[in-house]
Amino acid sequence: MSMLQTARMENYKQFLIFFILALAVGFVSIALVLTWVLHYREGLGWNGGAAEFNWHPLLMVIGFIFLQGIAIVVYRLPWTWRCSKQMMKLIHAGLHVLAFILAVVSVVAVFDFHNANRIPNMYSLHSWIGLAAVIFYPAQIVIGIAVYLIPATPVYMRAALMPVHIYSGLFIFTSVIATALMGITEKLIFSLKSPAYKESPPEAVLVNVLGLLIAAFGGLILWIATRPSWKRPKEEQNVHNNLTSPEDIKVGTAMTTRTDQESSLETRRRNGKAEESG
Amino acid sequence: MSMLQTARMENYKQFLIFFILALAVGFVSIALVLTWVLHYREGLGWNGGAAEFNWHPLLMVIGFIFLQGIAIVVYRLPWTWRCSKQMMKLIHAGLHVLAFILAVVSVVAVFDFHNANRIPNMYSLHSWIGLAAVIFYPAQIVIGIAVYLIPATPVYMRAALMPVHIYSGLFIFTSVIATALMGITEKLIFSLKSPAYKESPPEAVLVNVLGLLIAAFGGLILWIATRPSWKRPKEEQNVHNNLTSPEDIKVGTAMTTRTDQESSLETRRRNGKAEESG
Repeated sequence: MSMLQTARMENYKQFLIFFILALAVGFVSIALVLTWVLHYREGLGWNGGAAEFNWHPLLMVIGFIFLQGIAIVVYRLPWTWRCSKQMMKLIHAGLHVLAFILAVVSVVAVFDFHNANRIPNMYSLHSWIGLAAVIFYPAQIVIGIAVYLIPATPVYMRAALMPVHIYSGLFIFTSVIATALMGITEKLIFSLKSPAYKESPPEAVLVNVLGLLIAAFGGLILWIATRPSWKRPKEEQNVHNNLTSPEDIKVGTAMTTRTDQESSLETRRRNGKAEESG
Repeated sequence: MSMLQTARMENYKQFLIFFILALAVGFVSIALVLTWVLHYREGLGWNGGAAEFNWHPLLMVIGFIFLQGIAIVVYRLPWTWRCSKQMMKLIHAGLHVLAFILAVVSVVAVFDFHNANRIPNMYSLHSWIGLAAVIFYPAQIVIGIAVYLIPATPVYMRAALMPVHIYSGLFIFTSVIATALMGITEKLIFSLKSPAYKESPPEAVLVNVLGLLIAAFGGLILWIATRPSWKRPKEEQNVHNNLTSPEDIKVGTAMTTRTDQESSLETRRRNGKAEESG
């Protein structure tokens, strides 16, 4: 069944290339941020000093960027299409919750570091947009669970909120990446003194490359998440099984739908009956 | 005809609210960047000094952010639906070219300022991603003109490249906004000395608010550009008129298409014949 399901994906090889590329860029980003804090900076610790600050970029890249990105595209992995939609929703939500926990620890590290060193909190644009993301992200998770995981929520509400859920999820993810780029800018200016950032020492080049990779990771995730042909196929409509996610049928996934022709053909092909296309 | 066309738009009032909001946020951003350079900074000039640098944020906000944003959503303005697609393509391309010219002048201003003051060029992540955007943007424009404005380009190529055209356009736009947020971060750290950025003087708060508004403008443009129901209706298929943009018929606009049901209903409603939906 897995093979059969996977075979359904259009441009499967292209998907695989993009997904493996995203994973690779993500892993290299994590390796670079580790190199940054362990080799060029003060390592990791929890003592109110620079080593505590260093958890901030590390956990943000691992959690708020990498894990959030994977959580966003998890429905699109064709080898998960044999799993129930409900199970995939739990994995989607679980990865986001994990990303959020890492983001919170990461924020605590930087507040702790600031307080121990009498540096004001929340003065920079980085902190403003970053905090907004850290507030909107759990709101997105809670609303997502309430609307899509609790069976009581009516189908019309699931359908009506799906475009908002997708858009706000991708917007938060993009904002987190923009915030990381601002954070890199701040940190390199503050911590590189002689040689300074403007003299392009190796650390500056390494962390600029990290910034480029983070942006590329974001671009890859957004590409994968918005290709209509890579969407998880709708579940076979089983009238006896109310747990079959009902929003599959009606949802207006603005970012992930097909053109008229494509969608109709696809529906026919998948369900083998023409009336589904109307 | 205009009224009739406009009436076709679903959620017209909602569209109007989002579009007016985007315009308002855009205009306030321009007002804030003007206040920044004229009231808090050294004004505008072309003398190699700070007044020349100040053209950089001003022209970036006006051109590379505001005009690019408007160019992206110009097809969606329902009062343009009476205009031919070809005319709208010229306006779309023209606004992008104008945005690019302003971006280039803006980049020249900052290079000139750096050179006059012996500040290195191209060392920061802001400059790396910004320069990439300034290189990819004209590439996007030239490819767009070659594929969609030159009548010789075959329909299948127009259709195949449309998802890429849309995605790369939105990705460049988003990258420009992220670059602006990094630029704000850099400039506030470099130019605020006593009181410093971390002491949150009025200038810091004003420019942070500018950053939030730029991010909000980006969010509004991306929302408008990716709502399927706000898409310009397909032209009536006139077999005698080869200039009717052929990509309308087949294009796989991944970011701007409808769900199966929506699209089928919409096609039926618009064309008044059911067979279109298959």
